[in-house]
Amino acid sequence: MYKNLRNHIESIVPLTDEEYTLVSSYFKIKFFKKHQFMVTEGELTSYNYYLVSGLTKLVYTDASAKQHILAFAMEDWWDTDYQAYFTQTKATLSLECLEDTQALCITLSDFHELCGALPKMERFFLEKVTRGFLASQRRILSLLTTSVQERYEQLIVQHPALLQRVPKTQIAAYLGVSREALSRLGPK
Amino acid sequence: MYKNLRNHIESIVPLTDEEYTLVSSYFKIKFFKKHQFMVTEGELTSYNYYLVSGLTKLVYTDASAKQHILAFAMEDWWDTDYQAYFTQTKATLSLECLEDTQALCITLSDFHELCGALPKMERFFLEKVTRGFLASQRRILSLLTTSVQERYEQLIVQHPALLQRVPKTQIAAYLGVSREALSRLGPK
Repeated sequence: MYKNLRNHIESIVPLTDEEYTLVSSYFKIKFFKKHQFMVTEGELTSYNYYLVSGLTKLVYTDASAKQHILAFAMEDWWDTDYQAYFTQTKATLSLECLEDTQALCITLSDFHELCGALPKMERFFLEKVTRGFLASQRRILSLLTTSVQERYEQLIVQHPALLQRVPKTQIAAYLGVSREALSRLGPK
Repeated sequence: MYKNLRNHIESIVPLTDEEYTLVSSYFKIKFFKKHQFMVTEGELTSYNYYLVSGLTKLVYTDASAKQHILAFAMEDWWDTDYQAYFTQTKATLSLECLEDTQALCITLSDFHELCGALPKMERFFLEKVTRGFLASQRRILSLLTTSVQERYEQLIVQHPALLQRVPKTQIAAYLGVSREALSRLGPK
């Protein structure tokens, strides 16, 4: 599974074998079962996760216990409660497994140490965070300007593989509609 | 105005005089009048802007000519159509001045060259993009979970200085309500 991470990093910055040995020394492997929490609301968030396999949802639970899904993640995606991770404060979000999940994880202090030891990793993370920022801006624009029907159709076009694996109730929570309303939408 | 940029960068990474001379050599000064466009929808976006003074809005105009405001920016903030900037494609957004604005600007090729020449600038930009990403995630969550009334109150608390300077019609376009509906909201 370290090979996945190497290919993933090398899609942005090339690494020598020695450099990759250094990079991988900062990561630990973790295994999670379906429904297990990788990040738990109200607790400290020790890790940023690179998903080797599996599927997760990043969730905010409001005062009335309603779940709002901020993001899904699967193989080759990174996820955690980044606000909590970078500020080392308690999580306001939860990261829950929708399938058995294998992840490589890195602490914040190891993240800083790795970037200091191998500055090209800063370039890699800059590229990844920039892509995440652009995706967030597209989602904001989509929330401001499109209907739920249009957002559902965008999701089908942009992430067909995700749609196959995520239960419909979770898709509904991501779009902000009830399960029943989602059935009525359907792809046109 | 280069002093502003130096203080701004040094709030994250320290620079020697020589390093700062190098950094500033990659930036050009530009002056814009109120209502002038720094980025124009449908045209290429040459620059990422660091605002020395002034106020801007980043706008998406939909098929029915309705304006949706993605972000405001003022002194010490960065802004452009980042999707267009990083992919060197035509802008889908416009960046318009709401006041006379002075900005330091950098092209994408100079951005890459600067990061190559001075890797600590990669750390600076990584920190800035991460903050932008976190702010975007908070806005998504806010759009998913709060009412327009709550979003207006959040804006008053988080950006009081902005509220003083941005016309109410623009605040309404940011919140996604009509000017009349905004008057009825008022701060509680």
